[in-house]
Amino acid sequence: MEKRGLLIVISGFSGVGKGTVAKRLVKDYGYSLSVSATTRAPREGEVDGVDYYFKSEADFKNLIDYNGFIEYARYVDNYYGTPRMFVENELAAGRNVILEIEVQGALNIKRQYPDAVLIFIAAPTVTALKDRLIGRGTEKEAVVAKRMKRASEEAKEMENYEYIVINDELDVCVQNVHAIVISKRCELHQNLNFISETQEGFAQL
Amino acid sequence: MEKRGLLIVISGFSGVGKGTVAKRLVKDYGYSLSVSATTRAPREGEVDGVDYYFKSEADFKNLIDYNGFIEYARYVDNYYGTPRMFVENELAAGRNVILEIEVQGALNIKRQYPDAVLIFIAAPTVTALKDRLIGRGTEKEAVVAKRMKRASEEAKEMENYEYIVINDELDVCVQNVHAIVISKRCELHQNLNFISETQEGFAQL
Repeated sequence: MEKRGLLIVISGFSGVGKGTVAKRLVKDYGYSLSVSATTRAPREGEVDGVDYYFKSEADFKNLIDYNGFIEYARYVDNYYGTPRMFVENELAAGRNVILEIEVQGALNIKRQYPDAVLIFIAAPTVTALKDRLIGRGTEKEAVVAKRMKRASEEAKEMENYEYIVINDELDVCVQNVHAIVISKRCELHQNLNFISETQEGFAQL
Repeated sequence: MEKRGLLIVISGFSGVGKGTVAKRLVKDYGYSLSVSATTRAPREGEVDGVDYYFKSEADFKNLIDYNGFIEYARYVDNYYGTPRMFVENELAAGRNVILEIEVQGALNIKRQYPDAVLIFIAAPTVTALKDRLIGRGTEKEAVVAKRMKRASEEAKEMENYEYIVINDELDVCVQNVHAIVISKRCELHQNLNFISETQEGFAQL
């Protein structure tokens, strides 16, 4: 019997590299990456269906009405949402699905999917995070300050997550997230059917 | 700061290969294997300090009096116990320690070490377990029947464990146990100090 996939919700500091972690989980371990829908305009280089599904506000609201999102939120003037059908289909097919999302969405998803795993990707130190943001070179000082401010807010939410994974070395971080997923598969409550079958197997000897 | 090691308690069906799993965790991942003490006589080929610490009953009882065991039990006419000092020293040095022990000992240890991880190693099917026992070739039919009887009793205790790991392919089984240990390290409550440090780091910016 193919087991249902696991829903992995990844949040983390702006600039911590969680997008890269998610891509590596897709590449190395065959996870499915959920692509969000949004009403905001595509930025330069963004591809529809890869970075986001770009929707008109009318289409987005229509999807809301038809229960098409497992969660959605409005930020400033734009909607962002996680399309339900992709997530459901992938989980049913036994594939692990990654969502990259912020804390309110993560908690919202946990209420609907109690088996979802909430993982926060952290930088090893605050200094390391700042260095990483500055190191990109493309960001002006004001932008770095703004992102550090946001990370500082995000840090207040860390206790809402079930797992904290430090992204010091990317390979280790990716392996650790995968290890969490493997361990969830081995948890007692995921194996109650197997235990029943085993106990019945002995009874029939 | 070196983190304290994790205590991993492994139980599993007689004949399932849990001893081999434990040895591989030592070899592949540097875990420390706890060696039990016993008052029973060494069997042919058994080495003191490797298979067991062989003790006189007087010495064993003396160790009990001096709180030298984290758990001990008497089976038939012999005592078996887990020496405290080795486990404590290894954990303090940040090394993961494996104990191979049966269910009552496992539950006993969990009461004293709430962070201990209780893992049950199962065979993929009851038939596979029986084939494995027969496959050893050295066992007479009556011995196989006796061990299957014992495994059948052990199966009733599986719900007492936190994780069930199936030993179908040894490599996968070993990796899965290690994944559980990694995931424990990433659990929220293991990272509360890190979270405080991070939050303070932001506050000091």
